Amino acid sequence: MTEPSPGSTSDYTLGQIGEFGLINRVARTVRQGHAVLIGPGDDAALVSTPDGRVVASTDLLVEGRHFRRDWSTGYQVGRKAAAQNLADIAAMGGVGSALLVGLAAPADLPLSWAKDLSAGLADEAALVGASVAGGDTVGSEILLIAVTALGDLQGRAPVTRAGAHPGDIVAYAGELGWSACGLELLLRDMDGPKPALARHRSPEPPYEQGPAAARAGATAMLDISDGLLADLGHIAEESSVAIDLDPAAFPIEDQLRETARKCGVEVLDWVLTGGEDHALAACFPPDVELPPGWHVVGRVSERAEAPDTPLVTVSGHPWGATPGWDHFGRS
Amino acid sequence: MTEPSPGSTSDYTLGQIGEFGLINRVARTVRQGHAVLIGPGDDAALVSTPDGRVVASTDLLVEGRHFRRDWSTGYQVGRKAAAQNLADIAAMGGVGSALLVGLAAPADLPLSWAKDLSAGLADEAALVGASVAGGDTVGSEILLIAVTALGDLQGRAPVTRAGAHPGDIVAYAGELGWSACGLELLLRDMDGPKPALARHRSPEPPYEQGPAAARAGATAMLDISDGLLADLGHIAEESSVAIDLDPAAFPIEDQLRETARKCGVEVLDWVLTGGEDHALAACFPPDVELPPGWHVVGRVSERAEAPDTPLVTVSGHPWGATPGWDHFGRS
Repeated sequence: MTEPSPGSTSDYTLGQIGEFGLINRVARTVRQGHAVLIGPGDDAALVSTPDGRVVASTDLLVEGRHFRRDWSTGYQVGRKAAAQNLADIAAMGGVGSALLVGLAAPADLPLSWAKDLSAGLADEAALVGASVAGGDTVGSEILLIAVTALGDLQGRAPVTRAGAHPGDIVAYAGELGWSACGLELLLRDMDGPKPALARHRSPEPPYEQGPAAARAGATAMLDISDGLLADLGHIAEESSVAIDLDPAAFPIEDQLRETARKCGVEVLDWVLTGGEDHALAACFPPDVELPPGWHVVGRVSERAEAPDTPLVTVSGHPWGATPGWDHFGRS
Repeated sequence: MTEPSPGSTSDYTLGQIGEFGLINRVARTVRQGHAVLIGPGDDAALVSTPDGRVVASTDLLVEGRHFRRDWSTGYQVGRKAAAQNLADIAAMGGVGSALLVGLAAPADLPLSWAKDLSAGLADEAALVGASVAGGDTVGSEILLIAVTALGDLQGRAPVTRAGAHPGDIVAYAGELGWSACGLELLLRDMDGPKPALARHRSPEPPYEQGPAAARAGATAMLDISDGLLADLGHIAEESSVAIDLDPAAFPIEDQLRETARKCGVEVLDWVLTGGEDHALAACFPPDVELPPGWHVVGRVSERAEAPDTPLVTVSGHPWGATPGWDHFGRS
């Protein structure tokens, strides 16, 4: 779990060693998790699904949009790429079992960067007992990582976005606002709390809280990738309910509040609209005993009849700032 | 299964409708296969795996390297992207159950192209009873499609690349050389047999032959994506055997032979080294009754002790031309 420094060894490029060289040098050195019956090197991987079902999620990360090589090492990008997919598995109430990784890379990508990426993917996957079971490597003008995570529900019903009921409480587990804070510091080239920079480079989703919430009876759940307000909007939409949040209920760390002040930013903007922390948000029946680590921050109500009523409000009002992040750049 | 003409309707771009617009307009309109328990729109898909295991394979297709928009419609690219992944599932002896699709696209990509892509993916998946169960869409400077196929072994042992034995026969099912022929015609802007152009744009893997070969007792199998010689090299490598092919045993269509002559190309070059047909090649014990559609073209022998002995030969000799295709351009 130590973090290799980037580009330290005598370095080949992907163009020099070729596709099969990459597969042999990197993919096959990975230690496989217990669920992987056939790992890299064949036409396909074979993964155990004791539950008779498999949870599966895909995300793409594009250089310049989802990561920057001058801000993050290959190792950090690997951890982030694995984390955001494994968080999707946790958000269904499942536990990750395997990753499939597609790497599109320019021929001049240093082999050490690809190895660091692989180490980051492997270390993050190992946190839930998973491993990289297969993938593909192609040449490309841009650097892009496509990760598919597979996982197991351990016999439980999936927790979707569609099950929230009026009267439910809204809670979250994990961190909110730290990734947005880290991004702001990097954009301003400012010094700030180490956790903010670290979380932006590699989020730390609370994986175990997904199954814990499912066991506790969560009615709806998702992971926070586009900002809490935007993502709760998906639950409100899919469940045909409204959600109101209490801004005073968020346990905001002094360091985060202080850094927001220095940046001239409303700290709740980071907490409510910052993406990429990969915290989990869920709704629970009001009488449920929440697992440790969950913070109640709102309540589910009937959706108003009037069209254009906001689905998610803060103290009864729409939040002023832009509620999320649209990857094609529309506001 | 009709092929929509590209760009025919009044057309938005992806940048105009945004990421969520795309997901809602395209992904959710897809009819789901019987194995998909939760389709697009949640954190992850949920797919039935009655076998207690899942076969999983990922491939990336990059515009300009794996397809060209002036040569292929979105529909054809969708069929090809699905086909090459579902062929990997068949090559393990399995049947595809679901696809996850990542689309990285420039903001000016016409919505109609994305819809055509989606229709092609859906139609190809439907050939094996599968469907597109989920995915991701991101903005990107280039157009790239990342497909992950999931599949079911129906209780059988997987057929890997590592099980061939000396004395086994080598056979293939499907088509060889047609995709290479089509590529040559497109590169030369030449007229030629329609099947060649069609196969290069969208291969037609013999999906049902994968499970059929597994049931018949195939000892090793893979799909031909890099050329028969190169791909049989993987079986020889993984199984620690040698393979010799009989060039007279290949049933070469007159149309293919005639087109090769017009192009001044050795037709066996297309058949032995042409990639992307996604035929299946397999080894079988010598006494096996082959399923209909398999052609015996060679034999497995002990690997010679001497280093540098070629793993795959044709009539006992190495084939002169370059045996395959390395995606980073090394010869």
